[in-house]
Amino acid sequence: MKDKQLLMIPGPTPCPTSVLLSHARPMINHRGPQFKAVFNDVTENLKKIYKTKNDVYILTSSGTGAMEAAIVNTLSPGDKVLALSIGNFGDRWAKIAKEFGADVEKVDYGFGNAVAPEDVKARLAADTNKEIKAVLIQFNETSTGVFNPIDKIAPIIKEHGALILVDAVSGLGAIDLDVDALGLDVVCAGSQKAFMCPPGLAFISFSEKALKAAENAKMSKFYFNILEAKEFAEKSQTPWTPAVPQFFGMQTALQEIMDEGIANMQARHIRLRNATRAGVKALNLKLFVENDAIASPVITCLEAPAGITPDAIRKLALDKYGVVYAVGQGKLKPTHFRIGHLGYVNESDIYAALAVLGAVLSELGYDCDPSAGVVAAQAVVNREL
Amino acid sequence: MKDKQLLMIPGPTPCPTSVLLSHARPMINHRGPQFKAVFNDVTENLKKIYKTKNDVYILTSSGTGAMEAAIVNTLSPGDKVLALSIGNFGDRWAKIAKEFGADVEKVDYGFGNAVAPEDVKARLAADTNKEIKAVLIQFNETSTGVFNPIDKIAPIIKEHGALILVDAVSGLGAIDLDVDALGLDVVCAGSQKAFMCPPGLAFISFSEKALKAAENAKMSKFYFNILEAKEFAEKSQTPWTPAVPQFFGMQTALQEIMDEGIANMQARHIRLRNATRAGVKALNLKLFVENDAIASPVITCLEAPAGITPDAIRKLALDKYGVVYAVGQGKLKPTHFRIGHLGYVNESDIYAALAVLGAVLSELGYDCDPSAGVVAAQAVVNREL
Repeated sequence: MKDKQLLMIPGPTPCPTSVLLSHARPMINHRGPQFKAVFNDVTENLKKIYKTKNDVYILTSSGTGAMEAAIVNTLSPGDKVLALSIGNFGDRWAKIAKEFGADVEKVDYGFGNAVAPEDVKARLAADTNKEIKAVLIQFNETSTGVFNPIDKIAPIIKEHGALILVDAVSGLGAIDLDVDALGLDVVCAGSQKAFMCPPGLAFISFSEKALKAAENAKMSKFYFNILEAKEFAEKSQTPWTPAVPQFFGMQTALQEIMDEGIANMQARHIRLRNATRAGVKALNLKLFVENDAIASPVITCLEAPAGITPDAIRKLALDKYGVVYAVGQGKLKPTHFRIGHLGYVNESDIYAALAVLGAVLSELGYDCDPSAGVVAAQAVVNREL
Repeated sequence: MKDKQLLMIPGPTPCPTSVLLSHARPMINHRGPQFKAVFNDVTENLKKIYKTKNDVYILTSSGTGAMEAAIVNTLSPGDKVLALSIGNFGDRWAKIAKEFGADVEKVDYGFGNAVAPEDVKARLAADTNKEIKAVLIQFNETSTGVFNPIDKIAPIIKEHGALILVDAVSGLGAIDLDVDALGLDVVCAGSQKAFMCPPGLAFISFSEKALKAAENAKMSKFYFNILEAKEFAEKSQTPWTPAVPQFFGMQTALQEIMDEGIANMQARHIRLRNATRAGVKALNLKLFVENDAIASPVITCLEAPAGITPDAIRKLALDKYGVVYAVGQGKLKPTHFRIGHLGYVNESDIYAALAVLGAVLSELGYDCDPSAGVVAAQAVVNREL
């Protein structure tokens, strides 16, 4: 039963069988009429989740490719960029911008924290010459399990006038984000996250302002050239041969999301977070993010108990129960691990993940009631569902 | 029966049902033990087709992504590059190199021709200061249906000392290419070509010399950074979340290729080319490439008869028979179209494609024996198989 696994990681997430089977459809001509219909259907539904009238382009890459596309299509070498980092992905984005020649001011808010809006306000106010061309921010920081208050930060950036580039790869769909209401210029997302599809496609929205910036952006780019993507999107195509199976899968997955309802999907993710956090606490384990207000609806980071390594927990859970927890990232790797509750995941999956966690910890010598996590999670679900 | 199509295009090619179904396997952790086994299996079999001991890295992108990776990982802005173009993809590669700051000398051999080895020899001999850092060349130029005599050109470049970067996206697998014997430094390939897999993955080999160049290459890169790919390949992973379904598909497809035998697969592609060309000529149609010695084993470009547009032929073939021919590319678009014979294609597919071509042309008023193409193709197959 090696194939029977419960994937509790922040992507690839579990996928509905209908979505997986869509990947097995025979190939079609990516320049033909059938592909156009799929392309249009996927794009239209993506825009509903983005809550935007902006263009949303579809790239064959991971989310990191979309992050690169956001940078190289809006900036020129030497442009000043404010990178707000709260973890590994924030660090990565600053690194990408630097690699392509931006003058990056990285502000590190520390692992486990969110970006502080009043700090952003002060920094931007100090930029009296309006030298900062763009602000980089994560919507949801996957490495720590924190999501940023974009709704509070976006208006501050809007007031300054810099472009707002948002890495929403792990967050979009799972957490409400109103791209148009907040005026977000570029927003990155990925198929293997809330969209409950396999990896292979990334998504990126561009506001009119961002498209105007693209016309003047001098950073080197070819594969990720958004103006090429725009030109081809106008004929319902991609400039380069796309990952056709994932287009089929996204078409199916987005229909399932529309059937569930976008608001219901997002309420589900919050409920799963609340249940997971209650369960972790009931097992007397330490949550990495103690503040409920910034705790990610897609992933929960927790500390392994003293004397037990995260690797030992993850290995036993996988080998004995087929449950896959995610590793801790960056400096948290030796001490922490993560439980993803993202995509095609429901309440019973959380119960299973917590029951296995209790069992594994007991077996590894940790003194706990192995069912305490499930009991606490059930209480949350009974209250919220 | 809209789903029933015969894809005679140069990618995506038709795929075996076993390969398609592999794409429907449940997701796994791309950082876990199961993925490592798939990664290793795919990499090992890829190397057999490349005939190389060099590293072969796997990118989630189209072939164009691999072409970008070849450039940005071996060169620095200002480096002199000799780009040998015989069509659209040659032009594209020169454009990529220029975009990232190379000093590109593009030599245009003209649509329908192959690169002339003696000309390359003269040009490189004139570079007495050894300023040319790399030579860019297509193995198979998909836009025209010509393949270059890499076996004659590679030794000339080796003697000069420049890096040999080969775009073998549409050719590798279908046409014999001995990467190690020829000393090719970087060779690009793609899943949706001879590998009879859906699009989504690109492959790229790096010689030791190319890896050394990568350590000093100053062009901007992040997503396509090959030294990152190398570091992760050492633990059987990719740096960014890969298109997992295509890894499953490639594992199955490569096993099928090993079962057929690499030499048999390549003989099949030559046979299909010969049969297609004989059929086209028997229908009194004009082949774009008249010289058999450089005619591509993966795609045949032909001219539509006077008074009939390629679009009319393609549309009727698709609507009435479900046969998909490819458009002409670049300046050939108004007058030509192409028949792909690449990937999961056999003799009976060629018969069908030629019979439909004869029928469609007759219906559009062209004076021909509609079965003449099939008769001629059968004669070739009977002789060669």
